[in-house]
This record gives sequence, C-alpha cells and structure tokens, in this order.
Amino acid sequence: MERSKLIEQIRLKKSFLCVGLDTDIDKIPSFLLEFEDPIFEFNKRIIDATSDLCIAYKPNIAFYESAGPKGWESLKKTIDYIPDSIFTIADAKRGDIGNTSKMYAEAFFRTYNFDSITLSPYMGEDSIAPFLSFKNKWSIVLALTSNKGAFDFQKIKTELNNSLFQNVLQKVSVWGNIENTMFVVGATKANDLKKIREIVPNHFLLIPGVGAQGGDLDEVVSNGIIDDIGLIVNSSRGIIYAGQGEDFDKKSRTAAKKIQRQMANFL
Amino acid sequence: MERSKLIEQIRLKKSFLCVGLDTDIDKIPSFLLEFEDPIFEFNKRIIDATSDLCIAYKPNIAFYESAGPKGWESLKKTIDYIPDSIFTIADAKRGDIGNTSKMYAEAFFRTYNFDSITLSPYMGEDSIAPFLSFKNKWSIVLALTSNKGAFDFQKIKTELNNSLFQNVLQKVSVWGNIENTMFVVGATKANDLKKIREIVPNHFLLIPGVGAQGGDLDEVVSNGIIDDIGLIVNSSRGIIYAGQGEDFDKKSRTAAKKIQRQMANFL
Repeated sequence: MERSKLIEQIRLKKSFLCVGLDTDIDKIPSFLLEFEDPIFEFNKRIIDATSDLCIAYKPNIAFYESAGPKGWESLKKTIDYIPDSIFTIADAKRGDIGNTSKMYAEAFFRTYNFDSITLSPYMGEDSIAPFLSFKNKWSIVLALTSNKGAFDFQKIKTELNNSLFQNVLQKVSVWGNIENTMFVVGATKANDLKKIREIVPNHFLLIPGVGAQGGDLDEVVSNGIIDDIGLIVNSSRGIIYAGQGEDFDKKSRTAAKKIQRQMANFL
Repeated sequence: MERSKLIEQIRLKKSFLCVGLDTDIDKIPSFLLEFEDPIFEFNKRIIDATSDLCIAYKPNIAFYESAGPKGWESLKKTIDYIPDSIFTIADAKRGDIGNTSKMYAEAFFRTYNFDSITLSPYMGEDSIAPFLSFKNKWSIVLALTSNKGAFDFQKIKTELNNSLFQNVLQKVSVWGNIENTMFVVGATKANDLKKIREIVPNHFLLIPGVGAQGGDLDEVVSNGIIDDIGLIVNSSRGIIYAGQGEDFDKKSRTAAKKIQRQMANFL
C-alpha cells in the first residue's frame, strides 16, 4: 500500500487504529471451537465488526506459528479476508542475513501478501535491505519497545552520545525512506516520543502499547502526531477479548469504537 | 537434550559439525521435484548421508516459512526424521514480549520438538526468559553475527566501555546458565573469539560462518575451544549443495566427512 493511500484511509475513517489479531485458541469464546477453523472464524467476526473503525490489522505471527501448519492456513485465510483498503502488518520481528531475509520477505510479502512486516534491527543493514526492495511494501523496524526488557539494550548509551534506539532510528531511517519504512515505538514511553520525532520527523510510527500493555493515547498523540498523521496505534487484547459470549464481536466493536472516537478528536 | 549428552555425542563422533538444512526448492536437484514433498525428500537423503558425521542439524526457518503451510509440514517431517541423539536447532532468530515469546517457545519446543532455537536479544530479558523455562531446551542468542551488518549495531561502543555484543554476552549469560544458553558467534570474526571467551568461558558457541560465508576452522578452534569443547560449527550450503546430480547425497557426505576429519584432529 502506498503512503498516500494509508493517509487517505486515516482521514476517511477518522481513525489511526490498528487491531492486533493475537488470536489464542485458549482465549476465544468456547462456542467457536465447534467450527472447522475456530481461529479464522474468530478473526472473521472481529474483522466484520471492526473494519470500518480501524485502518490496519496486525496478526502477531507467534499465535499462528504455535498452532503448527494449520495455524498458517488460518493466517492465510485471515489475510485474504481483510479488505484491500486496510493495511496489514505481519508482526513477526524477523531479521537474518541477506539471503535469508529475502526468503522471509518472499514469505510475508508474496505468499501471504502482507503490506508490511515488523523487523529486528540487531543484524544491521543487510538484514533489512531485502525487505526494502519490494515496491509498496513496508519494513516496520523495532526502535523502542514497550516491555521492561527495552531497558536492557535499547536504552544503553552509545559512543555516539545517544541511546541505542536513537542510533537505530538514525541509521535505519536513511537505509529506506518515509515511503517504505516505519518504526515500532512503545506507547508507554511517550516521553521518548519527542526525542524520536527529532530524529524521524516524517516517518510513520507503530505504537503497540495502548490497552493491555498500558499507555495513554492523549500523550502519544500530542508528542507523536505530524501533518501526515504519522501514527498507527495498536490495541490487541483490549479489543479482541472485550467479550466472551456469543456477542463477543459486538463487545469488540464497542471497544474499538471507543478508541476510534478518541482518535477522531485529533483528526 | 542435556549438555552432558551433547558433549558425549561430540566425543563419540569426533565431530562438532552442525549441518544447516537451508533447503531451497530452487536449488535442490531437479529429479526430486517429482516426489510428493521434495523438500523433505532432499532433507531425508542429506540426513541419511551425514547423520554419523554431525552432532546437530539446523534448519533455517525462513526456508520453510516461505513455502507456506506445506513448508511447515516439510519441517515437521524433517525434525521427526532426525535421530534423537542429534541436537536440533530452529534457526528462527525470534524474540518478542513475554506472552508472545511464550507462544514461540511452545511452537518450537513442543509442536516441533526442537532442542533449541536462535533468538535476537534486542527486546531484552523478558523476551528470552520464556524460552529458558523449558527443561533441557536451549536458547541460542545472537551475540556477534557473521554478516556485514554486524558492524551497524553489534560493534557500537557502549557506556560500559565495551561493544554492544559484549554487553549482550555479559547480561544474557546470567539470565540463564551453561545448561540452557548458547551464543551465536560469526566464524569470520575469530579474532573476537578471545574477547568472547573472556566473558563466557564455559558456554557453548554456535559458529554459523564456516563454508559459504567464509571463516577458518583452525582459527575458530584455537580461539574458541574449551575443556567441554564448547563449539558447534555450522556449514550449510557447502555441504547440502555439494552436488546437483542423483548422487548429490554422496557429494554431501564427502563434504561433511572432510570437515569432520579436520574436527577430529582437535578432539
């Protein structure tokens, strides 16, 4: 998907909400277990209930991989079911040497037809470059994550007189451009957003921490928004597990609508 | 697999060779394409031809993931086919927040029954911890990789007056222990092995760079070997693509035998 189309969708829907499809067979309503593919059935109903309120879906690949080969079938059906106007993110956090990253890029961009994939920067430029060579596909690179472990390495001070995550932003932002690169920035670190916008004033940021992981939408927006919006804010568990009954999808819609309304105030 | 059993196998076979099963449908001998599952058929023959010469197999997961759901079937069949006495490594380079890493651990340690998995340290302790909680399963954490991109971040100097990869070794080595943690160290950086052994004198190291990626076995051994050996040296393309005819497996055996003989000199 082109950047201009993503921005157009955000303005049209008055939403920069991403719904995280972290679908866990042990957490979905039990009546769905009677279907042939309960994971897909759950996702389908969540998509039907929220697709006018969000501009992106982000399946975390771990949840599908852990189900074995049939999990990948559920993932493929889910991606095929999502309307083309909605941006899709493979939350895979991949990264390997060049010829291997090329295989991952083929898998997610071609076999599964995702618009984007999350990547770990640890192995450097040749681990990211193969993903950047696909037209209208996006690399979303981990900069500062929202978990406690972010302090172990991402916040280490480097010889360049900044933290590792700032160094990642500086380097990675020039490997690609604002048309094919985004960064993952944990919402619980909204104070860091100012520092981040100094380095990447025009890139889209994927903010994964609103909801179960904590994080405050007002703070994120006031520190992170740009003329082209430049924000995709994700909520997973807070939306998809909002209800447990037969009307779980209605509860999900209500939860998504609540966030979308807050977002509309800023657009 | 327990550490003692791995060491026993190394001494028994006089080998610390790992064969990388980076099986690419475009690179295997064309006569195999007539089989129902060419990837598995190739792997099966490679395993039959090399299992007495190596102590580990390492499928790079990208090569299976890129084939879609059927790639995961080929992977499962391959792992089930490998004799129990041989250590298996899922070269997956995963790493995510805690509840997601737990899903990946379940996938690779339970669904696919791998002995170990390679992990990226970028997201810190809670991204590694879920893998360490499985008994007799191993986390093999990226420290210093063999690609050019290793210089982008891994070699950055930090406030602790060392490089990021040294900081990774220091921190990660105390999260687990020598019974459940190994490190990935690129063989083309054999000079760095001395520095690495100062920090982790007793851990096993997975050295992925011998063969197509360059690297010198003598240099690796002289700088990296310990009383308990402590080395697993991988070769992928140099072994599995040694031949292209009907006798490709015999060529693979010859290539593996050559490396095993060199290794025997050090044991």
